[in-house]
Amino acid sequence: MKLKVKILDICAGDRPIVVMNDHDAEDLGVRSLGRVSIKHGEDKAVAVLNTTHNIIDKGQIGVMNEIAEELQLKGGQRVSVTAAQFPKSIDHIKAKLDGKKLNYTQLKQIVDDVVAGNLSQVEITAFVTALHAFGIDIDEAAQLSRAMCETGQSLKINSPYIVDKHSIGGVPGDKTTMLVVPIIAAAGVTIPKTSSRAITSAAGTADRAEVLMPVNLDLEQMKAVVKKTNGCMVWGGTLDLAPADDIFIRVEYPLSIDPLLMPSIMSKKKSVGAEYLVVDIPFGRGAKMQSVNEARGLARSFIEMGSRMDIKVHCALTHGEQPLGYNIGAALEAKEALEVIMRKKSVPDVVDKAKGIAAILLSMTGMDGPKAVEKVWNNGSAEKKLRDIIFEQGGDPEVQPDDIEFGKYGFDVHAEKKGNVMMIDNHKLASLARAAGSPKDKGAGIQLYKKTGDKVDKGQRLFTVYSETPRKLKVAQEVSETCQPMLIGSSRAVVVHHITEEEVE
Amino acid sequence: MKLKVKILDICAGDRPIVVMNDHDAEDLGVRSLGRVSIKHGEDKAVAVLNTTHNIIDKGQIGVMNEIAEELQLKGGQRVSVTAAQFPKSIDHIKAKLDGKKLNYTQLKQIVDDVVAGNLSQVEITAFVTALHAFGIDIDEAAQLSRAMCETGQSLKINSPYIVDKHSIGGVPGDKTTMLVVPIIAAAGVTIPKTSSRAITSAAGTADRAEVLMPVNLDLEQMKAVVKKTNGCMVWGGTLDLAPADDIFIRVEYPLSIDPLLMPSIMSKKKSVGAEYLVVDIPFGRGAKMQSVNEARGLARSFIEMGSRMDIKVHCALTHGEQPLGYNIGAALEAKEALEVIMRKKSVPDVVDKAKGIAAILLSMTGMDGPKAVEKVWNNGSAEKKLRDIIFEQGGDPEVQPDDIEFGKYGFDVHAEKKGNVMMIDNHKLASLARAAGSPKDKGAGIQLYKKTGDKVDKGQRLFTVYSETPRKLKVAQEVSETCQPMLIGSSRAVVVHHITEEEVE
Repeated sequence: MKLKVKILDICAGDRPIVVMNDHDAEDLGVRSLGRVSIKHGEDKAVAVLNTTHNIIDKGQIGVMNEIAEELQLKGGQRVSVTAAQFPKSIDHIKAKLDGKKLNYTQLKQIVDDVVAGNLSQVEITAFVTALHAFGIDIDEAAQLSRAMCETGQSLKINSPYIVDKHSIGGVPGDKTTMLVVPIIAAAGVTIPKTSSRAITSAAGTADRAEVLMPVNLDLEQMKAVVKKTNGCMVWGGTLDLAPADDIFIRVEYPLSIDPLLMPSIMSKKKSVGAEYLVVDIPFGRGAKMQSVNEARGLARSFIEMGSRMDIKVHCALTHGEQPLGYNIGAALEAKEALEVIMRKKSVPDVVDKAKGIAAILLSMTGMDGPKAVEKVWNNGSAEKKLRDIIFEQGGDPEVQPDDIEFGKYGFDVHAEKKGNVMMIDNHKLASLARAAGSPKDKGAGIQLYKKTGDKVDKGQRLFTVYSETPRKLKVAQEVSETCQPMLIGSSRAVVVHHITEEEVE
Repeated sequence: MKLKVKILDICAGDRPIVVMNDHDAEDLGVRSLGRVSIKHGEDKAVAVLNTTHNIIDKGQIGVMNEIAEELQLKGGQRVSVTAAQFPKSIDHIKAKLDGKKLNYTQLKQIVDDVVAGNLSQVEITAFVTALHAFGIDIDEAAQLSRAMCETGQSLKINSPYIVDKHSIGGVPGDKTTMLVVPIIAAAGVTIPKTSSRAITSAAGTADRAEVLMPVNLDLEQMKAVVKKTNGCMVWGGTLDLAPADDIFIRVEYPLSIDPLLMPSIMSKKKSVGAEYLVVDIPFGRGAKMQSVNEARGLARSFIEMGSRMDIKVHCALTHGEQPLGYNIGAALEAKEALEVIMRKKSVPDVVDKAKGIAAILLSMTGMDGPKAVEKVWNNGSAEKKLRDIIFEQGGDPEVQPDDIEFGKYGFDVHAEKKGNVMMIDNHKLASLARAAGSPKDKGAGIQLYKKTGDKVDKGQRLFTVYSETPRKLKVAQEVSETCQPMLIGSSRAVVVHHITEEEVE
């Protein structure tokens, strides 16, 4: 069938989509979401078909920018359109939909087609949903990780040991990575760290690190920094390490499911060549893992998956019931990390977690981990290493804590009664910081003055909320009025919840 | 956030979608596939957000036609955009994704949001996939049918008995409905029949009927025909009886799953007010149900679902191993139906099936079914009723079999050896008819001269393939060369399949 090209000034997000009139589609025998092949001269492309009865006339084909560029099409040109087969990978998605287990070849074909843009959003969603519904076993997870890693870029570095760390997240103010990377690198071990930005939290490691240095490096720049310093702190988003992951995450978001959590993490670790990995699993009330048993189960899965991927994995189960340190929000957290590594300020939980995880990692490579950590911490070489990394990534290596600016607008929250801080609600703190402008506004955040167990007097200041604009400050104030992130009570009070019949029903 | 409207000349298929620059979306705290609220003057609408980094500039919002019309927007106008909540029905979809059973209220909320365009394709796909993965039990199916029926139009007719028939399909040449409707209506019982067009077959009942009369009636026109004649044969596609169904079918297609088969059928029967229903379930090799046990299981489900929806259901298990009658393709089938009802031609299987199903239906209303059928068949009132319906729907009531035109181009297929027709492959015949132009070209099709069991001599004509154009004839010839829809063998041959080790692996 010959059709006249109409260029549609819209981008379908990687997937090649063409739009045809209902009538022509029927004539061709292809339905909406089926596939058509478009030929222009010697060039050919297969696209997902959408049909319409009004936007595109009979005899026309609407072509989005991606395909127009690929086939060098101009509006008004004639192309030859024929019915095409669905990609073979859809058979594998159907197999998973019937509860079957997929092997490496099948998973690789799916991932290849996802990355090449050969699958429609419906098909990708069906795959992710089927993985969620039927579960993904450890074999499938490992094979999928391998497939996701192989379809992306990878970092090749010649080092005796390449190590990495990962946190499953969920703890506000967790600036551990900003301290672990310089400690490990200062101890002479390579740690090519990539991090994510905040999704539902106040700040991700990439957001924090960006306060001190550029983090949008490409793979070559990242490699150069690692070669010079043994470490780096870059944003994983532009590196194209496991591009299928970003596409899967997009459909997981509205459904709040993440069957691909483990493959997503492990594929990226494999891509940077990690041989030793510590996974930080915070647990407890308000953390992602509610109980220590749940945390142990996840740890076992990480370790088993690592063994299938030639990555030696240890896990650190950590207290996740309250924020780490006193500062929440990108700029405030970067400041606290800098103060701590300069040993200007003592923040015991931040220091303990960073040193603990660094020691595990170094021990895995055969060193006396705790001793090595103490050495580079106390002799200032961890701080020096952080400044080297800042310099190599293009930041100011002389940066001081007081140089870091945060929101000009703020308000204090005070204790309404005397007592002890019984609980700090991680989720409420994150919501409050986000209302104040985090993670987009790096200067937004929360400065805590009290942690769980601390005594407070009535009217005493509990925390300050910072914002970059008066408008967002107002939003944060409104949120603050209805949410109490700190529960003050008597340390002898045992009954803390009262569940009524209505709540149970 | 204030943004400047850019109208996107594309239609998102019912769903309100807006496109924003990544940067603005981040500022608003909403990710792609999240929801935003757009306010223009007093008018407000919630839309699914898509994000981009190139098509839409910072400060702009791309708005598709549907929303532009709803809010009366023009390019360049400023609208106020805020983050909005996901629809509540997504929680129910998530519940199903976790394997939970849904109740009427939850299913109704999902269907309402599907029809209102409040759910994105990702969310609809997740729902359909979850129903497929976890199954849909009889309660859920009945509640979903009710919800789907309630969100659409319905036919209200005052009759002592309203009956309906449905075939699960799969048998080429099945023109039963074209005969059952006039028999029932002639016997004085109301049968407001809606039918579908072909999806994977050579012709649907709507396609066949359209050869004799217009079938794109609206609900008022349909009602008028039924009032005058007791029956009708209209296409269900424009009636908006259960609009959610069309939307679900769209995402089922690329995945070839249909967890909504039963709710889809039953909701439409309920919408036309059916109190008695016969479901025709063809079974056997090449049919949708392979074994009689499978067919019985489906029958039980239909009957149980009917009882929950106040529809009395009987099922007819019918031989589905070969085509019904000798003609396949819309025009050829309409011709055969007309010849049969005029008693000009004896086609035993066509007559037996039509009379049998009509008799079951009439018996369900308390009549002596077989007797009533014989009467209206033999005294010509069934034929007269068909002509009345043709007239009321706007066709020519004097139409004769020879008036019906079919493809001018054709080729014969001959027996390569002497023997008996051992088997006719339904799927291969359908593919061949489709290659010749069915279902779009009403004149395309296949005229059989032999059925299963018939003796053939070497070189004897087995069937003729008709096409409306030389191009499609050529395609059909190519298909014919590689596919043998009729297997000729010795009637005493018992070994018909030879399965090798390779096939088993």
